[in-house]
Amino acid sequence: MDTVSGAATRLLFPDWMRGVQGRVETALARQLPAAEAIPARLHQAMRYATLNGGKRVRPLLVFAAGELSEAPLPRLEVAACAVELIHSYSLVHDDMPCMDDDVLRRGRPTCHVEYDEATALLVGDSLQSLAFEILARADFADGPRQLEMLALLARASGSCGMAGGQAIDLAAVGRTLDQPELELMHALKTGALIRAAVLLGGLCGTALGADERDSLDRFAKRAGLLFQVVDDILDCTASTVTLGKTAGKDAAAAKPTYVSLMGLERAREFAADLGGQALAALSSFGERSRRLVELTDFITQRKF
Amino acid sequence: MDTVSGAATRLLFPDWMRGVQGRVETALARQLPAAEAIPARLHQAMRYATLNGGKRVRPLLVFAAGELSEAPLPRLEVAACAVELIHSYSLVHDDMPCMDDDVLRRGRPTCHVEYDEATALLVGDSLQSLAFEILARADFADGPRQLEMLALLARASGSCGMAGGQAIDLAAVGRTLDQPELELMHALKTGALIRAAVLLGGLCGTALGADERDSLDRFAKRAGLLFQVVDDILDCTASTVTLGKTAGKDAAAAKPTYVSLMGLERAREFAADLGGQALAALSSFGERSRRLVELTDFITQRKF
Repeated sequence: MDTVSGAATRLLFPDWMRGVQGRVETALARQLPAAEAIPARLHQAMRYATLNGGKRVRPLLVFAAGELSEAPLPRLEVAACAVELIHSYSLVHDDMPCMDDDVLRRGRPTCHVEYDEATALLVGDSLQSLAFEILARADFADGPRQLEMLALLARASGSCGMAGGQAIDLAAVGRTLDQPELELMHALKTGALIRAAVLLGGLCGTALGADERDSLDRFAKRAGLLFQVVDDILDCTASTVTLGKTAGKDAAAAKPTYVSLMGLERAREFAADLGGQALAALSSFGERSRRLVELTDFITQRKF
Repeated sequence: MDTVSGAATRLLFPDWMRGVQGRVETALARQLPAAEAIPARLHQAMRYATLNGGKRVRPLLVFAAGELSEAPLPRLEVAACAVELIHSYSLVHDDMPCMDDDVLRRGRPTCHVEYDEATALLVGDSLQSLAFEILARADFADGPRQLEMLALLARASGSCGMAGGQAIDLAAVGRTLDQPELELMHALKTGALIRAAVLLGGLCGTALGADERDSLDRFAKRAGLLFQVVDDILDCTASTVTLGKTAGKDAAAAKPTYVSLMGLERAREFAADLGGQALAALSSFGERSRRLVELTDFITQRKF
């Protein structure tokens, strides 16, 4: 069977990464309704919001975690697309005027600027439905496992996950959060979906043991937090052109970030600590976790 | 096993209806996160938008269709809640300023008026996630069937269903649609979720034969259209107080409706025709379809 191990693991990390990104881009283009299918404007906007050459960090995590369970590529592709569709929907809604009110995303006008607000609202709604549709429709030949994956992704997306974190974030503007409050917010807002990506990848192949699942979950939680701390650092150090989205936005909006809480240097140390903890959680997997290790290093060192 | 047939079918229709409405209200209250769970404001708003004594037409259709397959009540309850959560999310988003911009829903301020726009956006997003979460998490002891139900509900909700219908509706404001265009819009906007409710109820129990599924689907499509035609008639004949939402809104917004297309009298005749066609589709089910027949009559004759 076509799995992520074997020949694929001998690729250098940048080549592996580009391979997964290309595969996910193609799969997303196929899973999304055609641009000319009625209602065409909505479908064009869904494609505009999703097929934009994003970094595809969550799909990369799905594929990297899939190596632990020797998962078949077609399953990883479906899981990766489902997670990325949820992520894309959240970006479209977060950018809307009533939320973060942003005009730039991945170097292009945001969805409500390029189309209109009503369309952007429906784009987000429809991308969310599509994520669950493709995950429910795929044939994984293991109904209970597939239902577990659906429940996991839905939980990570909703009010006890990503959307809940966004709600806490909105309520926190202009207030000072302490570190536990900030961690709860990010554990939900960014962490929940990052964690779901890792766990979904682990669920795509041979069943992991209870200890292995615990280790993977420990990794997933650290990786989610790490990603957000690095994001906060980049928001205050990188330029708008490099990021492809408006830089310095968090500070301008008086949003609580790790940098505003602990300063740039301590935020960098915290990121390095989290990276170390994430890697430690993977130690028992040995060579099977090689892509997750490389990806963690990549996330820690990313510049955009 | 506790099924909808047996004692329950001997109830008079109004008593059966109140029984299902009460059961669904209780189940929704249990499925929604507690009002004090973090983030509390979001969870309060989700409960506000959902637990408002709606007519619960879609849950009633799930339970009535469940009689065809002698479905266990706990399964019907989950399916009914999932459909109603999707319906509730769509009302919250449809009422927002960038869509229909309405301030009144079921006699109370709409969600974005009572809370704020950002919260309303997250309420809708979270209700959608919750619908799929509860349907994926339930134990129906038949994985493939449950996955089929999830795929069906997701498809009915997204850009090829309800959200797609809303997009066509938005694009049609101020334009004249002919009857086929109007039917396509409504087949998606209202019809897709009504149809899903009926089919989900049919999927909750003993498997129906291919002919029975075809008959049920024919019924479901007619019932969905019927519901919308009656809605259009009520929008121009009932008062805001009776409807619990702003009456005459469609005409004021120059929205295409069956009444604007064919006039009030012909719209009434069309509704009666559709009701007859819906009932004809049920004829082969005999006594098992009694609740669906009564519910169709109720929908045809409703005054609010």
